[in-house]
Amino acid sequence: MALIPRLDIASLDALELDPSTKGLPYDAPRLTVGDIAAQGWSLLAGDLPLPVAVIRQEVLAANSAWMSAFTAENDLVIAPHGKTTMSPHLFDLQIADGAWAITAATLQQVGVCLRFGVKRVLLANQPVGTQAIDACFRALHTEGGFELYCLADNPDGVAMLIEGARRNPPPKGNPLRILVEMGFPGGRTGVRTREGAIELARAIAAAPGLELAGFECFEGMLPTPETADGLIDDVASMALLAMEEGLFVTAAPIVISAGGSAFFDRVVERFNRVSFPHPVLRVLRSGCYLTHDSIAYAAAFRRIVSETSLKLPEGGLEPALEVWAMVQSRPETGRTMLTMGKRDVSHDAGLPVPLRWYRPDGSMAAPAAMPAGHEVVALNDQHCHLVTPEDSPLRTGDMVGFGISHPCTTFDKWSLLYRVDEEYRVTGALKTFF
Amino acid sequence: MALIPRLDIASLDALELDPSTKGLPYDAPRLTVGDIAAQGWSLLAGDLPLPVAVIRQEVLAANSAWMSAFTAENDLVIAPHGKTTMSPHLFDLQIADGAWAITAATLQQVGVCLRFGVKRVLLANQPVGTQAIDACFRALHTEGGFELYCLADNPDGVAMLIEGARRNPPPKGNPLRILVEMGFPGGRTGVRTREGAIELARAIAAAPGLELAGFECFEGMLPTPETADGLIDDVASMALLAMEEGLFVTAAPIVISAGGSAFFDRVVERFNRVSFPHPVLRVLRSGCYLTHDSIAYAAAFRRIVSETSLKLPEGGLEPALEVWAMVQSRPETGRTMLTMGKRDVSHDAGLPVPLRWYRPDGSMAAPAAMPAGHEVVALNDQHCHLVTPEDSPLRTGDMVGFGISHPCTTFDKWSLLYRVDEEYRVTGALKTFF
Repeated sequence: MALIPRLDIASLDALELDPSTKGLPYDAPRLTVGDIAAQGWSLLAGDLPLPVAVIRQEVLAANSAWMSAFTAENDLVIAPHGKTTMSPHLFDLQIADGAWAITAATLQQVGVCLRFGVKRVLLANQPVGTQAIDACFRALHTEGGFELYCLADNPDGVAMLIEGARRNPPPKGNPLRILVEMGFPGGRTGVRTREGAIELARAIAAAPGLELAGFECFEGMLPTPETADGLIDDVASMALLAMEEGLFVTAAPIVISAGGSAFFDRVVERFNRVSFPHPVLRVLRSGCYLTHDSIAYAAAFRRIVSETSLKLPEGGLEPALEVWAMVQSRPETGRTMLTMGKRDVSHDAGLPVPLRWYRPDGSMAAPAAMPAGHEVVALNDQHCHLVTPEDSPLRTGDMVGFGISHPCTTFDKWSLLYRVDEEYRVTGALKTFF
Repeated sequence: MALIPRLDIASLDALELDPSTKGLPYDAPRLTVGDIAAQGWSLLAGDLPLPVAVIRQEVLAANSAWMSAFTAENDLVIAPHGKTTMSPHLFDLQIADGAWAITAATLQQVGVCLRFGVKRVLLANQPVGTQAIDACFRALHTEGGFELYCLADNPDGVAMLIEGARRNPPPKGNPLRILVEMGFPGGRTGVRTREGAIELARAIAAAPGLELAGFECFEGMLPTPETADGLIDDVASMALLAMEEGLFVTAAPIVISAGGSAFFDRVVERFNRVSFPHPVLRVLRSGCYLTHDSIAYAAAFRRIVSETSLKLPEGGLEPALEVWAMVQSRPETGRTMLTMGKRDVSHDAGLPVPLRWYRPDGSMAAPAAMPAGHEVVALNDQHCHLVTPEDSPLRTGDMVGFGISHPCTTFDKWSLLYRVDEEYRVTGALKTFF
């Protein structure tokens, strides 16, 4: 179900890595992104400097396949949020597995998509300011075709988009496609009232160069899945209302979309309750499913598995992203310091959890599970404070693999991550663009 | 007092910026770092995409000069922590203003220093693992000379360094210089006892290829300036003890060093109470003074000004680093959403504070101070939630300049920052290497 063509990743593989890139071995020669796969490096053999971020490719592939099966079984498509990884190699994997578009949060992110050949982007924000809006309209003229969806949630923003279309008339048949964003009181962006939303929809529908493409929300700001239902329902009912008013003139299916990685079961359940008189594309925008995590989204997924009425594919999401660090010192009983800090691993949704350890002296065939009682209690910029039980096996120079919470804020700490097999042998590089 | 030569920054200026670099205008041509200064860009004219990080060059220069005067007046030198900015242009400014060395936290950071010509680095960590230790010894052979100081805090670590010196004998006259790190119970790295410290010092002094260079601590983990005194005193008294034992064979002055940006007055006060029978170099390692901040270090500096017994130079440290974002939406009374998130600004030591706003439509001659009642209450990955008073002047498309807390975790979110004058005209680029 490859709705958009695979990326031509050759230009990315040809990109030379800056020699100061964090994660490159200290004595590495000049290398391109594509050169990494052939270096024969192994984490456990000590070829990578620590800390380092690795993605277990088998888990990654299984997660991507799981989401592909989930969306296929439930009559929806996915426009995975590219902001999570900002890795064109991972965008390509997602597209190969049927992604309908890549979602982006900013124009810089849209630019990365354009550069590496993504043909359809959902900018899940209202572009503001002359520079950003002009960039949106310029993108519509991309050779080979490029569709851009973006959001609008207020009249001033729509006025800016209308003005932008006047300055930069889009090519015939490729307008700037707009989704009206629904919000909720105390929430983030998004129109707060149905009246406000339908007025925006009318203004967009009437504007040359813009096309009303549908409605969407981001339900991930709501505290519980139950509280998200009303917002998700608003999206569907506003789409119905706009259909009834005849505001859609698009030949394409009308888009209804929602977005986070925590409540995506509810999005599907609520969207699927509604019958529409016109073809509708249900677009999920989850981004974190791909690498998943060991804490926040792991808990969210357990909730989905236990609560949802949907049929879920076999298997499930598993954490693929790990950050490995080295024991720098065990300065006192009960405390171990490691070479990893706030600059290497997310800390905004839970501190990393030690999963495995390994002594790189030939004495261990494989990493061992971390015994109970090891817990990260603090991160400084470049240090990790690990509370350790009295009988901890760790000593200076040992390697520890950590699971993380919130992939977005771990990815953005690395411009180079490694794809590894289950023996932690490097099979490729993932270059990110944050 | 330029103890080390200025950097040759030409190779950095010649570096081509990746076209996907966050902060570059969306339609910018291919540019080198050095090209930026001549583009004639202005933040207020809308030439920069928001969010963007800017450094006010006049404030920066004044902060650097203040610290230069402070260290000169108080018989100490500074090895500013380079991890804060990872900007070779700023290292060069610090060296021009008399820095004795640049401090680094990791081997990747040491590598950046080497690449751009820093001649003396204090690695404020114990290197662990074969790859890191070999990189230290390789660095000693750098053509044109390179001195490397690093830390040790435990026997296993010292054994690794001794083994490293065997594998990679340093050139004659340029050993790996080691400072024994003093710590405190419940703290980070650092030897917990005087006995442990002197044993490490003896082992280092006896090891071929290593040189005992002094003692140091990082007092910034302690909660209050008073509690830091004991640790700082330990450093001085251990240096005295090692002198008495004849453990120093170095021709260079013996180093005593401490490190943070919060209690640097105490470091000076305590170190200056001690008389030594040998020449001693008192090395401060503060990093955050250069751009300072608007919250955490601003408060720490007010404490220093009000409490210290030292004579401080005229003026004082002021915040130089700002992140500017655009109003994306005002979706309800009392709430404004801006295009800036966790990925753009530090959030680990206080949320950013709105300082100024500007409407880029020609109606304002200069940014206006932000009226009272505007407060950041949350950051998402790519959004800022600003609580706004009912009569807030802000509307969609307005620009807001934020002061930040904790420079280290704002710098690391930008590989490109702009140096600006007081009218926010771009005068140059600062490329960082995180």
